[in-house]
Amino acid sequence: MPLSSSFPAEQREAVYRAIRERRDVRSGFRPEPLEPALLRRLLCAAHQAPSVGLMQPWHFVLIERMATRQAIHRLFLDANHAAASIYPPETADAYNQLKLAGILEAPHNLCVVSDDLAPRGRGLGRQTMPETAIYSSVCAIQNLWLAARAEGVGVGWVSILDPEKVKQILGVPAHMTLIAYLCIGYVDHFRATPELAEAGWEQRIPVDAVLHHEFFDPERKPVEGRE
Amino acid sequence: MPLSSSFPAEQREAVYRAIRERRDVRSGFRPEPLEPALLRRLLCAAHQAPSVGLMQPWHFVLIERMATRQAIHRLFLDANHAAASIYPPETADAYNQLKLAGILEAPHNLCVVSDDLAPRGRGLGRQTMPETAIYSSVCAIQNLWLAARAEGVGVGWVSILDPEKVKQILGVPAHMTLIAYLCIGYVDHFRATPELAEAGWEQRIPVDAVLHHEFFDPERKPVEGRE
Repeated sequence: MPLSSSFPAEQREAVYRAIRERRDVRSGFRPEPLEPALLRRLLCAAHQAPSVGLMQPWHFVLIERMATRQAIHRLFLDANHAAASIYPPETADAYNQLKLAGILEAPHNLCVVSDDLAPRGRGLGRQTMPETAIYSSVCAIQNLWLAARAEGVGVGWVSILDPEKVKQILGVPAHMTLIAYLCIGYVDHFRATPELAEAGWEQRIPVDAVLHHEFFDPERKPVEGRE
Repeated sequence: MPLSSSFPAEQREAVYRAIRERRDVRSGFRPEPLEPALLRRLLCAAHQAPSVGLMQPWHFVLIERMATRQAIHRLFLDANHAAASIYPPETADAYNQLKLAGILEAPHNLCVVSDDLAPRGRGLGRQTMPETAIYSSVCAIQNLWLAARAEGVGVGWVSILDPEKVKQILGVPAHMTLIAYLCIGYVDHFRATPELAEAGWEQRIPVDAVLHHEFFDPERKPVEGRE
């Protein structure tokens, strides 16, 4: 039986609320682990993502031991130190005041990798755009992020890491692509404003600044043909 | 004022419903355009995606003219013909019976491109993983997809296209990356099962097939250190 079309108003609004109130959480994680059933709901939400040709190329490595997280955290410290060094002194000061990862505080870390050689989907959709396997894995992350927001669970995406070194620590096969390293845990509340905006690092731009009609270049001559 | 933590149960369930009932729609688009306010809500949902360093690297090109869509559709036909030719005869027959794009039927097409050189975010998070700019744009697509599901709007992602040729038609600057070409329109209902599963092309796998604990390889020796 097919599924009904639009949701009732209050359900629609809940979806928009999750989208609007989702935050990249780097601080304020509570130490207690998630209930196993809740953690599984989040992973199932990720696993329901769209994927090119129904390829389902993602793998999830759930990391909980402190010793493993410390090893990853050392990689973060190295990468973060190198990252700060490219800025002039004043910007480097601002950079160094940002809290950029909750690897040790968040009780669950989740490494998302993409198996670009997974046979599922029989190559459908990937001959012209093979990168869509990776994009499918990113969609899985966004699903998890939104479900987590609804559950009161914070998620932070750490990209200040050498992905090949993380793969080595976790024993991820060489041909797979590390997509994301996430920190996951309960939080007491979510910020009203993104942390980087609050800290003055960057601000949101209006949607009209990135919206184009018919062509990217508004001066472009229309394609000829019947209308 | 900070935002409250978890959503009430019925709002949580609505988020999971959108995730569970979202479909990649290739057929069944209705011809009437979306109400402008609804279309804008979807674009704003996309624009609220997470982005590395608050970079907001995405651009949205909204395509509505039939002549432009026909030019894109010709690229699809070329790419689809080439794609079918790699399969042995029996698989090629199955491939050719799949409906893979609603470019001409869906009243709105949306091309999502990522500006990897956008200055916003001042490079934060992109020194070790520059690909996170592109991943941010994929998160924007998943936001739009879920909001659309709640609104009763179908979205289909077409990757059987030469992205450089699409960029040429739409006048997208050469340095930007084409992430996705989406078909968007009202649908009467959504399928209970993904179209590719229904057609027997591929099936879903259980989440446990992609879930790993602590290490990808379960035989791996733990990292030494304090627990």
